[in-house]
Amino acid sequence: MDRTVCARLHYDGTHFVGWQLQPDGRTVQGEFEAVLERLCGGRVRAHAAGRTDAGVHALGMAVSATVPARWTPEALRRALNALLPPDCWVADVREAQPGFHARKSATGRAYCYRIGADAEAASPFRRPYEWALGRDLPADALQRGAASLVGPHDFRALAVHTGGKENCRCTIRRARWVRRDGERGWEFEVAADRFLHHMVRMLVGTMVEMALGRRPETDLDRLLTQADGVRASPPAPARGLYFVAAEYPDRWFRLGDDTA
Amino acid sequence: MDRTVCARLHYDGTHFVGWQLQPDGRTVQGEFEAVLERLCGGRVRAHAAGRTDAGVHALGMAVSATVPARWTPEALRRALNALLPPDCWVADVREAQPGFHARKSATGRAYCYRIGADAEAASPFRRPYEWALGRDLPADALQRGAASLVGPHDFRALAVHTGGKENCRCTIRRARWVRRDGERGWEFEVAADRFLHHMVRMLVGTMVEMALGRRPETDLDRLLTQADGVRASPPAPARGLYFVAAEYPDRWFRLGDDTA
Repeated sequence: MDRTVCARLHYDGTHFVGWQLQPDGRTVQGEFEAVLERLCGGRVRAHAAGRTDAGVHALGMAVSATVPARWTPEALRRALNALLPPDCWVADVREAQPGFHARKSATGRAYCYRIGADAEAASPFRRPYEWALGRDLPADALQRGAASLVGPHDFRALAVHTGGKENCRCTIRRARWVRRDGERGWEFEVAADRFLHHMVRMLVGTMVEMALGRRPETDLDRLLTQADGVRASPPAPARGLYFVAAEYPDRWFRLGDDTA
Repeated sequence: MDRTVCARLHYDGTHFVGWQLQPDGRTVQGEFEAVLERLCGGRVRAHAAGRTDAGVHALGMAVSATVPARWTPEALRRALNALLPPDCWVADVREAQPGFHARKSATGRAYCYRIGADAEAASPFRRPYEWALGRDLPADALQRGAASLVGPHDFRALAVHTGGKENCRCTIRRARWVRRDGERGWEFEVAADRFLHHMVRMLVGTMVEMALGRRPETDLDRLLTQADGVRASPPAPARGLYFVAAEYPDRWFRLGDDTA
């Protein structure tokens, strides 16, 4: 008998080339599947709700896998944490209905992006975990930028994508900037049904350049309508980005209650 | 012409075997002196206010050195930060009177020790930087422990020391526990004229065991009076300890004003 589980994984992306298995380089998926293989006595595939790039962190990456039923969720959590490297940590494991898939079943995702506004953001305790901008940003410009993102838009001008036919439509459900650690920094919180590749980092890069007065605020609307001759700013550094949570319909976690 | 300087250094101790040069292993002193040698074109000795052990961090380690006068403090700070590895960072550099020595001139030192009280303290973003105790501690027991430390005491029972003749007298000027990140943890702040080897970690280890009810609260007073048959608890883990600041008489930094 098998059991489908969903783990919530925290990882420090600094020393990974990203989530997804690569021929070369250390990946979170590679580490996670290697531990699952030891525990389950055979190859187990792990699926994540989002594929983070090199240097991007996770505070709650949803990861699904199918394991032998002898592994209860709590026993699996303990065993994973005993064997995973110190830059990965499982906050919890839940049982899910058969067929659950962390990426395909997700109906929403949330990210945050952290910026350091003071000089000390360059210290070794903060530099790997935020964009050490080292200067403050005007709150009103940031908030106007965030507000203009909410709703359904075509984000092809604010992402790296494969080509003209790719579906670039995403619905931003929530976007706002909040103060962090007093006046020491900013955090951009954003939730959507889906995100394109590099999209959060390009949004942040563009909003920061607007807030610094380096480009007109109207550029964001023009990018969202793919006006001619407007290009997004370079993506903000990977180390400030965190995958925070994935959203799923409740039914995936309603167990032994199929008729409800 | 030479110039004596005092740098305030932050470092993440995780990947160092400590401050002090060792025949084997990566040390902060080794990295710092290697960069000074490149900048100054010859061997430069660096002295720190305290010698931290493997895994211990610094948020303001005072480091003195004598460099060619062509290095202004600000130019030196920038050059050091450009060349130091990412786990070291110089917050500022000040000029000091000739003869200034970060260890010998110090009249006080301050440390802090961080404890994680919630389960998430084991996450990769926090584990290298605090003692992931994973449970809360009663505030009153902690504060009683801290209060009993203040003043001059012989700390030979709460330190690793060389032998009977070593001077083990230290005057604790300030000791208190403060809440961190809401209810997620505790921080022990302590300042004294001097500290013995492993002293802060053994104080924390002993206070935590008392707060958990694993040993009587009277043990701390008995340890401070070297009562027979009482031994300190094992030292708390290195990764929770931070060297925070060193204190110096103002006159070391009063420049071009020798008659004042």
